[in-house]
Amino acid sequence: MDYQPLFARRAAKPVPALFRAGAASPQGVIPLTYGFPDPGSFPIEPLIEAATRMLRERGRDALQYGPIAGPEPFLDLLVEKLGREGIPANRDNLLVTSGGSQGIDLVTHLLVDPGDSIVVEAPTFIGALQTFRNAEAEIHEAPLDAQGLDTSALAEVLDRLAAQGRRPKFIYTIPTFQNPAGVTLAAERRRALVELTHRHGTLILEDDAYSELRFEGEALPSLYALDPEGAVIQVRTFSKILAAGLRLGYLVTPKALLPRLLQLKVDVGTSPFATHLATAFSRDARGRLDPLLAHIKALRAVYRERRDAMLSALEEYAPPEVAWTYPHGGFFTWLTLPEGLDAGALLPRATDAGVTYIPGASYFVTASGARNIRLAFSFLPPAELVEGVKRLCFVIQKAR
Amino acid sequence: MDYQPLFARRAAKPVPALFRAGAASPQGVIPLTYGFPDPGSFPIEPLIEAATRMLRERGRDALQYGPIAGPEPFLDLLVEKLGREGIPANRDNLLVTSGGSQGIDLVTHLLVDPGDSIVVEAPTFIGALQTFRNAEAEIHEAPLDAQGLDTSALAEVLDRLAAQGRRPKFIYTIPTFQNPAGVTLAAERRRALVELTHRHGTLILEDDAYSELRFEGEALPSLYALDPEGAVIQVRTFSKILAAGLRLGYLVTPKALLPRLLQLKVDVGTSPFATHLATAFSRDARGRLDPLLAHIKALRAVYRERRDAMLSALEEYAPPEVAWTYPHGGFFTWLTLPEGLDAGALLPRATDAGVTYIPGASYFVTASGARNIRLAFSFLPPAELVEGVKRLCFVIQKAR
Repeated sequence: MDYQPLFARRAAKPVPALFRAGAASPQGVIPLTYGFPDPGSFPIEPLIEAATRMLRERGRDALQYGPIAGPEPFLDLLVEKLGREGIPANRDNLLVTSGGSQGIDLVTHLLVDPGDSIVVEAPTFIGALQTFRNAEAEIHEAPLDAQGLDTSALAEVLDRLAAQGRRPKFIYTIPTFQNPAGVTLAAERRRALVELTHRHGTLILEDDAYSELRFEGEALPSLYALDPEGAVIQVRTFSKILAAGLRLGYLVTPKALLPRLLQLKVDVGTSPFATHLATAFSRDARGRLDPLLAHIKALRAVYRERRDAMLSALEEYAPPEVAWTYPHGGFFTWLTLPEGLDAGALLPRATDAGVTYIPGASYFVTASGARNIRLAFSFLPPAELVEGVKRLCFVIQKAR
Repeated sequence: MDYQPLFARRAAKPVPALFRAGAASPQGVIPLTYGFPDPGSFPIEPLIEAATRMLRERGRDALQYGPIAGPEPFLDLLVEKLGREGIPANRDNLLVTSGGSQGIDLVTHLLVDPGDSIVVEAPTFIGALQTFRNAEAEIHEAPLDAQGLDTSALAEVLDRLAAQGRRPKFIYTIPTFQNPAGVTLAAERRRALVELTHRHGTLILEDDAYSELRFEGEALPSLYALDPEGAVIQVRTFSKILAAGLRLGYLVTPKALLPRLLQLKVDVGTSPFATHLATAFSRDARGRLDPLLAHIKALRAVYRERRDAMLSALEEYAPPEVAWTYPHGGFFTWLTLPEGLDAGALLPRATDAGVTYIPGASYFVTASGARNIRLAFSFLPPAELVEGVKRLCFVIQKAR
């Protein structure tokens, strides 16, 4: 049977090779690829305890269909948690989603018709790019640097679009501990970004997947906190602070958008089981959030140690002219190879030498990032990170 | 801030009142509304046991990101389960989804551009209609009767569309224990439907949410089983046989469609936690599916008793000229009121009398179903069903 004539436009093009989450790496090869949480930190016994208690006390809610926006006990947990971060939330501006990714997908469906413009910082999250491509968005890039999204460059992009009579539907940004670059948007740029967004009558899709995993320094206000009930929709997730396998995230959104997002969320609600389990795990017997906060604190120490191991290994083994970002949190650093080297061309040699990574070009829409490499320090223990970096640096050294 | 100019077309229209799953009914009112599973049948202690064992043995998989199509142990379970139903499945024609609803959404995204035609049997599932409307599909209806979708009427619809040069992208049908009508597509019509579909070069989206809950009679072959690797995509769910709150479903699809469906499934995979939990619940220590099969068998007895209670009460209390369907399985019967009565107009009086239901008009795209009512017998125990039917019949009697 010939299915081709029946495909929607978005599905008619040949399928590009996907970065497949969960794909195994070859035996003996150290994967610096995976932006996955540390499996050794999964709170297995506390989750067994929480699941047992939750199923006995709230099994009939957890196993049943639930409200599309999310069960109230979980919404109330989010309100409290966000309040601690300075984000005004209530039951009317929250929408529970299947991970952050569904949040990005819903917002894209809310705003983007085929051919509509959006702006992303470049490089950016591969999964978001795939979502925007599925929506047939016209994707414009604004560069980032060590201080995050370059708001002056963004202003030029927005002015250029405005001159063409185009208003982008939103600006997609990961301001804190960016994926893939590991950089954080500076405070003054955060304000500039919000101001620019209002001036151009567009929105910000703020992907805040990593901010809770800060290793040092003061927390910066999120874009949503700078402009609540304004131009910002914030995407959040429990994937990095509890368990990616629960597929649990949420949107913090201006109230006015919630009914329309609910209309587009045709999955009959995100798993009540996952929300009730996360609630049971997060609160102690007196209803306080201490167990969740203690777990996040422990994760910070785990990932800080890994960041330190990776950066120290880079300091020790990287040839001159190799540069990398200094992440104050999150999962990634972003390497720049010496001029003349190509991260994609180098990958087979690196794999032969026993280390893999994702070449930087994957994180751009335009032909950029040839000299870049994303290195994830989240997934592997320090000793393996060091060995992986050592192998990679050896390959770079040989290729120079 | 004015968000209106930024909305995509699908979101620009005012939001209609949604049927909100999980919305509570007023105190003292018997809801014959909910097509929800029986909460008393949730296997809470076995799930606690399964969750404990699963987290200890496979916690690092269950709490981590997993393969987009679904973890292999769960795919293998599906292959075995589907094999028992005569459906040829393997790891390459299955895609795990967040409930059946995400399956419907993905297939719609795969096939439908704005303005494309699709055909639904009428009445049909409200959630599917919402999904098709979000996709800006042009929805055509073909009627059903006591034998399911009227394939002669469907042939006329397809001929009419063909004469206009329109080929529908798919025909959406719930052939077995239909929602909302409770009817089942007769065997000869199943073959006619597949034949018609091929003749018109379109596809079938077969929503098979209820077939495992058969109370009597022989199982009929599913449409997918009649045409494997052909024109049928089958949507399945664990919502009715295990727990709706896990949001666990799957697609059985021609292999050729799988890469494109994976590309559109941007949620980084359906919950590995849910799939591993369902696997641990379903298999015994020797790897057999007996626990799941025994649970489904027990559910059949529960829902059969409820169906019997509701139909007996209708026999006893319904005024003459009220008709209803006889479901051999599933969750619903479909009532037709005497001429001159309107189910929507009657609802406030019914609510005053202590019973609610969903008026039939909600299940149509065109202005139809005014005299129809969907009655769900799945959610309430027999005594409440009888009392609810009694109250409803009293209201109908008074209105005649």
